[in-house]
Amino acid sequence: MKSEKTTYIFEDLQLLFNKTLNTYDIGNTPVRLYEPIRYTLDMGGKRLRPVLLLMAVDAFGGGIEDALPAAIAIEIFHNSTLVHDDIMDKAQMRRNQPTVYQKWNTNTAILSGDLMITKSYEALNNLKTSKFQEILTIFNKAATEVCEGQQYDLDFETNDHVELPDYLNMIKLKTSVLLAAALQIGAILGGADSENAKKLYSFGENLGMAFQLQDDLLDAFGNEKTFGKKIGGDIIANKKTFLLLKALDLAKGAYKDELTSLISNKSIDDDIKINQVLKIYKDLEIQRLTEEQMLKYFDKASSFLKEINIAESRKDALYQVSKKLINRKF
Amino acid sequence: MKSEKTTYIFEDLQLLFNKTLNTYDIGNTPVRLYEPIRYTLDMGGKRLRPVLLLMAVDAFGGGIEDALPAAIAIEIFHNSTLVHDDIMDKAQMRRNQPTVYQKWNTNTAILSGDLMITKSYEALNNLKTSKFQEILTIFNKAATEVCEGQQYDLDFETNDHVELPDYLNMIKLKTSVLLAAALQIGAILGGADSENAKKLYSFGENLGMAFQLQDDLLDAFGNEKTFGKKIGGDIIANKKTFLLLKALDLAKGAYKDELTSLISNKSIDDDIKINQVLKIYKDLEIQRLTEEQMLKYFDKASSFLKEINIAESRKDALYQVSKKLINRKF
Repeated sequence: MKSEKTTYIFEDLQLLFNKTLNTYDIGNTPVRLYEPIRYTLDMGGKRLRPVLLLMAVDAFGGGIEDALPAAIAIEIFHNSTLVHDDIMDKAQMRRNQPTVYQKWNTNTAILSGDLMITKSYEALNNLKTSKFQEILTIFNKAATEVCEGQQYDLDFETNDHVELPDYLNMIKLKTSVLLAAALQIGAILGGADSENAKKLYSFGENLGMAFQLQDDLLDAFGNEKTFGKKIGGDIIANKKTFLLLKALDLAKGAYKDELTSLISNKSIDDDIKINQVLKIYKDLEIQRLTEEQMLKYFDKASSFLKEINIAESRKDALYQVSKKLINRKF
Repeated sequence: MKSEKTTYIFEDLQLLFNKTLNTYDIGNTPVRLYEPIRYTLDMGGKRLRPVLLLMAVDAFGGGIEDALPAAIAIEIFHNSTLVHDDIMDKAQMRRNQPTVYQKWNTNTAILSGDLMITKSYEALNNLKTSKFQEILTIFNKAATEVCEGQQYDLDFETNDHVELPDYLNMIKLKTSVLLAAALQIGAILGGADSENAKKLYSFGENLGMAFQLQDDLLDAFGNEKTFGKKIGGDIIANKKTFLLLKALDLAKGAYKDELTSLISNKSIDDDIKINQVLKIYKDLEIQRLTEEQMLKYFDKASSFLKEINIAESRKDALYQVSKKLINRKF
């Protein structure tokens, strides 16, 4: 019989997952192919997706061990997208370390990223469950949408008419769906019926939105050390984040002209640009408005969690982690 | 009861497969992501891997229709590797058309290639079979080895001590294993036991080797129009093919010096280089020696086909197609 409470909190499962990933045999020759894969997986990170997957298993009273292959699969897939996104975005650093294409070269990053996609399916195939093809369907849908989201993100770079709803749809695809799929897969492996599993998907989808808005905020208002990336990177790159699109929506007259000219000015010094854009953000209360939008998503996520048909105490670990996620230190 | 003969020959199944692929719904938005995928799949080609898969199904008396998802999966995966290889190899043209990264750009080619990998698994997941995870294991192993083969190929570019066995191992991984896996998967879907399916894998592995050596020959001695690529491309790129490695093995004294200096000469005119290298190949009888090696693989492939425990008449279509493959017009 299921106990009334979940057995694990986020940190327990993070530890267990890291131990599993560290010893996971992903292959080793040719060295130039596997070294970048191990490097990427060893970079660390919160392991948010696999841990949420395991928390979902636990919430429905399933066995964590049997679900580990799915957790490994989700994390390897997620990391494959990081390796390729860094090429596309010309990102130099990730988690305070050089990106794969910088440390090796573009060809190595393409090929090791490709192999990571296949390796994610290989990991998934270690599941022993009669619901394997149902889980694979969820995995494939999310993996597809992540690519679609990245394409919209690339499209936005050369599109001067991106609206807030376009942006929200893009981050849903690029960030939220994989988080949501991780939870849905975990729920199924934990024994949830498909209706409850879908509710956990919706919880994850909304949590992912809140999480991404938080990320946008951190890029502008965060602490460089804990964030792991240079602050203001989005501003320098004219990245159409929630912050910038909201500011463009709200700015009027001279303000609008100033913001538009800052974006189109290619010779301006980076630090000056960051400071001037941040001043406009401050005057327009962009931080507060973004936090409000973030809270809306958080509340929506919570309401899906409430609807799920298990004891409240079994949802507590998920609720705690979602609160923690959007209160990440600035 | 199974009839004594197979129902289809290569051309029948090629037609059926192309019809299926043409109408296969792979997705459509965002357009800039899906257009390159459709473009790639519509480029044509022999459809060797999916057709061999279907021939294997037929050889064991299975139903072709049920196996189509696996055939689609193999072809999409194969094409994903072409899209990414063309970036890595800086290839301008494929099948007389501009490559994806040339027609669009590198980011588009990376991302649409990535999605094709996932889409291959999505196609595979349309199979309805109790042996799904067994088939996925074979698919993943081949997909992994294709990446490994490509990495060795990239490594060889900057390695001056590549030996013939290294080369043969590389082409086994890069070319043969996917062909072999297609046949093995087809056999299983057709109802073969695992021993006979493995024999068909070995048939495909050796056929793939013969096929790749034929490709090396065509690049040096082929007809530009039927080959679809510029003749001598390997020679210009100093690609370490069977031909070049064999020539380096056999060349002595002044010949060796001439060949080595041709390879290291960066300012030489392309056509002069091609002609001089071809002259050395001719003097050293490289064409005949490569054909002999090709025939060895072909004979080995045939012997595996003979060992398979089905009526000889059911193997005939596979035997015919393998003969045809290595007699492609120069």
